Amino acid sequence: VSSRSVPGELALIEAIRRRARSASRALRLGIGDDCAVLRPKTSHEICVTTDLSLEGTHFRRDWHPPESIGHRCLARGLSDLAAMGAEPVAVFLSLAVPRRLAADWVDRFLTGFLALAKKLRVPLAGGDTAESPSISQGRGGLIAADIVAVGQVPRGGAVLRSGARSGDIVYVTGTLGGAAAELLALSRYPRKFGKLTDALAGHPHLFPEPRVAVGRRLRELANAMIDVSDGLSTDLTHLCQLAAESRSVLELALHGGEDYELLFTASPQARIPRKMAEVPIHRIGVMRKASRGQRLVVLKSNDGRHISLEPVGWEHFR
Amino acid sequence: VSSRSVPGELALIEAIRRRARSASRALRLGIGDDCAVLRPKTSHEICVTTDLSLEGTHFRRDWHPPESIGHRCLARGLSDLAAMGAEPVAVFLSLAVPRRLAADWVDRFLTGFLALAKKLRVPLAGGDTAESPSISQGRGGLIAADIVAVGQVPRGGAVLRSGARSGDIVYVTGTLGGAAAELLALSRYPRKFGKLTDALAGHPHLFPEPRVAVGRRLRELANAMIDVSDGLSTDLTHLCQLAAESRSVLELALHGGEDYELLFTASPQARIPRKMAEVPIHRIGVMRKASRGQRLVVLKSNDGRHISLEPVGWEHFR
Repeated sequence: VSSRSVPGELALIEAIRRRARSASRALRLGIGDDCAVLRPKTSHEICVTTDLSLEGTHFRRDWHPPESIGHRCLARGLSDLAAMGAEPVAVFLSLAVPRRLAADWVDRFLTGFLALAKKLRVPLAGGDTAESPSISQGRGGLIAADIVAVGQVPRGGAVLRSGARSGDIVYVTGTLGGAAAELLALSRYPRKFGKLTDALAGHPHLFPEPRVAVGRRLRELANAMIDVSDGLSTDLTHLCQLAAESRSVLELALHGGEDYELLFTASPQARIPRKMAEVPIHRIGVMRKASRGQRLVVLKSNDGRHISLEPVGWEHFR
Repeated sequence: VSSRSVPGELALIEAIRRRARSASRALRLGIGDDCAVLRPKTSHEICVTTDLSLEGTHFRRDWHPPESIGHRCLARGLSDLAAMGAEPVAVFLSLAVPRRLAADWVDRFLTGFLALAKKLRVPLAGGDTAESPSISQGRGGLIAADIVAVGQVPRGGAVLRSGARSGDIVYVTGTLGGAAAELLALSRYPRKFGKLTDALAGHPHLFPEPRVAVGRRLRELANAMIDVSDGLSTDLTHLCQLAAESRSVLELALHGGEDYELLFTASPQARIPRKMAEVPIHRIGVMRKASRGQRLVVLKSNDGRHISLEPVGWEHFR
């Protein structure tokens, strides 16, 4: 069987395995067999999400420190678990890297990835590695990372998108627009951020904090919940155009995206605190039946005006 | 929330969702929320594996029909479940494709993927899509597909690699070397294979059959089990060099790889039939303690000679 090993990939797998050691009651078998074996709590259901991050689409090697890329890849998956109200059980990492990559890139990527994993107490239980091929002479291959996050919720307890009812109050956690604003700054002064290696507060783009604890507490309170980043294009080019066009703070908040906050609805009778797990919770509107039977989010501005949120389409690579 | 959608990706996700519809008792919620929700059997454990397939490393667009690529991506994941003795519960697909891809490529990829999924009764429960960026003028991006396969086994029932004991008989399912032989033919006459769209028997490279049914039956019989393809480089370039060097049939069988057969050990007292689920089972050796405390596989040839299997290292892109 050992005749099957690929030296380059094996070294990468070994580097990951060496650093991934972490105990967990729910993880029976981690890296090193054909599959990982998870033992979820009895009478719990399993939530699974996958998030693919590609160089040039979701991050840029010349803008993002490797620690940030590792952190962000994992944050995307954990934010999806948070949006179901799930408790993380294990994460998996499929990583493709070009042959000629700065020696410490993977190491720094793993540092960022594993720091967030440790903080949220979720073990890296497996994955896959591959060498990303060069597609033209003299140019190396691209980096691609696919994250799988597995969580558990009590049977029937997952908070679905479809649970919202007319009359529900709409809330959002934390602050929106910060990630887009930091990305704009990053695009202008990438060197200023190149040394950032830690998930410090106040770096909502480089080191977003998935709202796992808030999500779990909202399982009892919310009727519907969604990850604000979901379906959002992280098109850096596009966001830079947006900078040039000097959009307003409101537009950044509405359309800038990648804030990894939770948007949820709850009955007017539900007692939603102003802060949960130290994260502020903002009431931003109500659910109303739209004329054609569709639900629309109606926002209420500070001066009392009601604003219907218009869908804004995004497109990669324009 | 709909303001977050990316038209190109949305169309791809819709195409996948439309075709992925499939019912399953264990799948409570499929594509369309932040996570899929799986309901495994009570007192079962969960097996998870991820397999990353990259254009140029694991397949070539000019050699492999899209149906074969979809089939093979899924087969890799299901073969890992088979090697644990697990029953498939759901699969997930993260797919990155370049903007300019032949219109029917994704459709044909999904046809191959979903035909195998249907055959083995496992639903496509979610995933992610992204647009693979072009990294040089005039060249499109590469295709990348990451498969996540989730299965279930009774608690403590997974067949691990570590379970082999000295004196165990070593078996392998099916036939080895066929995949490598077909790949050689493919590299020489790619057009001959370009129209193949179905998982016909006799195409061990293009349409390998993961041994899911055999793996489940072996759960009660095997002490240790591994997917023969595991850890194997699917380096097409390398395999073509191998052709040029005219290696022997034995070498193709030992080192050609990608046969997606199961290698397992069982006690000499275990009753292993000669066929399971219509797949022949071959006894190929015994487990012996090696001098330095390591286990080695000792093969026995038809003329009675004993051959120790030497590890052969493989490397991408030499």
